[in-house]
Formats: sequence, C-alpha cells, structure tokens
Amino acid sequence: MSFSEGLAVSADAIQTYLDEALRDFGNSDLVQAMRYAVSGGKRMRGYLVIESAALFDVPMERSVPVAASIEAMHAYSLVHDDLPCMDDDDLRRGHPTVHVKWDEATAVLVGDALQSLSFELLTRGIVGEPRLELVASLAKASGAKGMVMGQAQDIAAETTLQPLTLNQITSLQDLKTGALIEWSCVAGARLGGADPEPLRQYARALGLAFQIADDILDVEGDADLAGKRLNKDADAGKATFVSLLGLTGAKARASELVAEAEAALAPYGAKADCLRDAARFVISRQM
Amino acid sequence: MSFSEGLAVSADAIQTYLDEALRDFGNSDLVQAMRYAVSGGKRMRGYLVIESAALFDVPMERSVPVAASIEAMHAYSLVHDDLPCMDDDDLRRGHPTVHVKWDEATAVLVGDALQSLSFELLTRGIVGEPRLELVASLAKASGAKGMVMGQAQDIAAETTLQPLTLNQITSLQDLKTGALIEWSCVAGARLGGADPEPLRQYARALGLAFQIADDILDVEGDADLAGKRLNKDADAGKATFVSLLGLTGAKARASELVAEAEAALAPYGAKADCLRDAARFVISRQM
Repeated sequence: MSFSEGLAVSADAIQTYLDEALRDFGNSDLVQAMRYAVSGGKRMRGYLVIESAALFDVPMERSVPVAASIEAMHAYSLVHDDLPCMDDDDLRRGHPTVHVKWDEATAVLVGDALQSLSFELLTRGIVGEPRLELVASLAKASGAKGMVMGQAQDIAAETTLQPLTLNQITSLQDLKTGALIEWSCVAGARLGGADPEPLRQYARALGLAFQIADDILDVEGDADLAGKRLNKDADAGKATFVSLLGLTGAKARASELVAEAEAALAPYGAKADCLRDAARFVISRQM
Repeated sequence: MSFSEGLAVSADAIQTYLDEALRDFGNSDLVQAMRYAVSGGKRMRGYLVIESAALFDVPMERSVPVAASIEAMHAYSLVHDDLPCMDDDDLRRGHPTVHVKWDEATAVLVGDALQSLSFELLTRGIVGEPRLELVASLAKASGAKGMVMGQAQDIAAETTLQPLTLNQITSLQDLKTGALIEWSCVAGARLGGADPEPLRQYARALGLAFQIADDILDVEGDADLAGKRLNKDADAGKATFVSLLGLTGAKARASELVAEAEAALAPYGAKADCLRDAARFVISRQM
C-alpha cells in the first residue's frame, strides 16, 4: 500500500470510529459542532499511532481508538487556537471555523468537550493495555508542560517586541506541535509493549520538520489547497523558521530532519517504510 | 471535628497538593494564572471525595489527589464560564476573573491546561486503585454528556424566548452542577471498593439542593460575602428555581432534598454525620 493510500485508510477508520463514538452523544448544537470540528484533516497524528503500533503487529482495532483519541485532542486545540482571542482564524481545512459557523461560546465548549472525549476514548481499550499510562502521558503532552504551554508562548510572542530566536522557536514548536506528534509515535510502541525510544527520536525530528514545512507553506503555499489563510506569520511580523533561516536554509534544515527521522527507524527495517514515506511527505505536502 | 473545621482541613490539604503539583510547572504567566484559578473556593467537591472515601476508611493521602483532580476540573469550568463569550463575569470568589486579571487568551488556555491537569492528577494514585475507572467516569461527567452539555444548555437558554420549565432546569442543572458532585461522591466509594449507589443518591439530591440554594442566594445573598455579582439571572430574565417555585417554594424544595440526601446516608450510620452536615450547609450558606 502506498503512503497516501495508507493515510486514507487510517483516516477513514478514525473518522468511522469518531462518528460512532459521537453518535452516542445525541444531536444537540454542541454535538453537531463537535462532529464538524473532528471532520476532515490529514489525520497525521492518528496515522502515526496506527503505523507505529503496526511495527509491533498491533492490529488496527486496538490502535484506532488511540488514534481517534489523539485526533479529538488535536481537533480541540485547533478550535481553541482559531478563536478571536487567540489566532483569530475564519477558515480551517477550507471551511468556516467553529466560532464563525456557530459562535465563540460554542467554540469554547466544543474544544472543552473534545478534550474530555479524547481522554474518554483512551480508556476504552481492552484490559491489559497500558491505558492509564497513555492517559497520564497524554495529559502531560497536552497540558501546561506541552501543547497548551506552546500555544501560550506563541501568543506571548505576538505581543513582545523582540522576535524569537531559533532556539526559542524550536522549543516553542517542540511543545505546541511536537508534544502530540511524539505522543502518537510513543503510544504506538506502548501498545506494542516495545521500547519507545527509536520512535521518540523519529517523532522529534518529524515534528520539527513538520513545523518548518508549515512555515515554508505559509510563504510558498496555495491558500485554496491549504484551506486556510496564508502569509499570516509574515503579515504579523512574527519570527518563523523561514524568517530566521531563509527559504533555502529552512528547506535544507527540513531535509536534514527528515533524514534524521528516517535514520531513527533503522531498527525496524523495511517494516517502517510507510513511516519513512510519512517523513518525506511532511516536507513535500502542498496542504 | 465540626463540619466547618473538616471543610477547612480538606481545603488546606487540597490546596497544598495543588500547590505542590503546580510547582513542577515553572512560573510562566500561564502557570501563575493556573495557580490563581485554583486558589480559594469552598472545595466542596473535593470535600465530598475525601469524606465519601473516609466512610470506607480510605486515608486522606489516597483521597486528596482525587479531590485535587475534581477541584482542578471545577476551576477550569469556572474560568471558561466567566469568559466574555459565556457568562461574562468580572468577579469570582471576590477577585477579578482570569480574563480580567490577564486576558481572554490566557483564560482559555488556563482552563484547557487545568482540564489536562485534572486527568493527570487522577493517574497519580497507587497501583491497584481504580484510576482508569475514575478517568473514564470523570471524562464522561465533565464532557458533552455532562458538565459541558449543561453549560451549553444554559447558554442556549439565554437566547431562547421561551423560559425553561422546571423539568428543563432540573435536567440542565443535573448536568452542569450535578455531574461533578455525583462523580465526587461516587469516586469516594470507588476508592473504598464499595457499592456507590447510596452515595450516588445522596449526591443527586445534594447537587440539586446546592443549585436551588445558589438561585436563592442570587436573590437574597450579599454580593460582598458571595464574592461575585448577584441578581444576574433575574436581571437576564432567566428562569430559575426561584422564579419557577417562588422563594418559599424554592426553600421548601431545597429542604426536602436535604432530607432525601440525609436519608440516603442511612446505611453508614453516624459515620456519615459530616456528609449530613454538608447537606444542611449547602442550604444555609451565605456564599
């Protein structure tokens, strides 16, 4: 199966699982908006859970609930990040953001409820799985030592006069984007009862490459394909990997990181080819 | 120990535990605001965890982390409920709300991070405890089938022309306030490995009495003692237990519920006296 076919298969399985989980919540405005918020997207984090777990022969019926959990967590973060008091974005994945289509109160509550759902889904696995460990590590990765802290630093950076240094941006993105990507790969290893370190190395390189690619896309991308506003960092005068390294330098750094990510997969041989493809994909993507 | 002494002892233990947990998060603006948000308050939910657990001889070192978890969850809900797009409150527990003292972005992120913290604290107990079950039930009680759905219904009620009926308000409050109160009491029983049903009955009556008392306080209370804006429901033309039952009727219903709550504690005899006192306290409180 090619990488793009694999990504599509994972995305379908995750969407089906989320649809099924949300069917149980009725059809109120809140739940309709939750469904809207968890629809679409590349499902890259969920794919990483599924493929990391597959390295250790964990079948999809065991990895999909965990993949759905991380996608619910990611979706909540996007809904809150898009709020007027945060990044103030009207468009996400080519559609109006939740606070535009509904209102701000609904967007706050949708994010809150998706975070709860994310933890609930993690508890649904089978007996004997490392569910408690997954809950504990996800709570850390998503909270004030992980994703939320990264977003807080990102917002703070907009109001400080001194642009961030390369080290500061790297550390900020490690938290904001890297923490959930790392969690996804490590979760796969934990489901397989395997040493997570090689996958942690892979994920750290991948996460940073992903964010550099995002900055490149922000400058070079096509807004229609991306389904969101572009050039917003440059417009806001924010330091980015591109503003600090130049376009050529940023592309070179991203390629280096992809090579690092691929190298970290050495212990798994050809079995990890789809994760290698995933690493190459993040720097070639148009959206 | 009298009820008010017991409440103070519990509140101190919970505060100490939360302070210690947050020390580990550094001293960024975000974390300072998280500390601010989890300070003060009656700690009623945490007290219910500790005293319910004590019925089964669970010592405080086992129940306090769970009590701290529910207080972090409650604190997050208050920070988000106070946002301008929600209830738009400037004052909470006698102090400026988080979005007033910091800003809206910080308030959204503080709430998000406190929800993560709440789940993280729940995973910290000792091996053999029903931690996964507590995570699963708290995720349900706090999310789109519990507290968040109650808040969504409350916000929606403000924009509909038709005031809510008594059944609708009861069901809304069961979700918005009742779900976490019920979880607290049931969690105590689970920590003790005991049948949670009597405590569930107690909590359901107590939760509703608590909310009716809140509506009475909103009309009769002293804003200085309450530490928050009063009369806001009446000002907003919202249906409340008082508007639907009258002041006398609301007080009578609250007393009935307290009697129900006390009756549910019969299996525990004198050991449950402090929980009986807690029930009487909720309808006599001035804040």
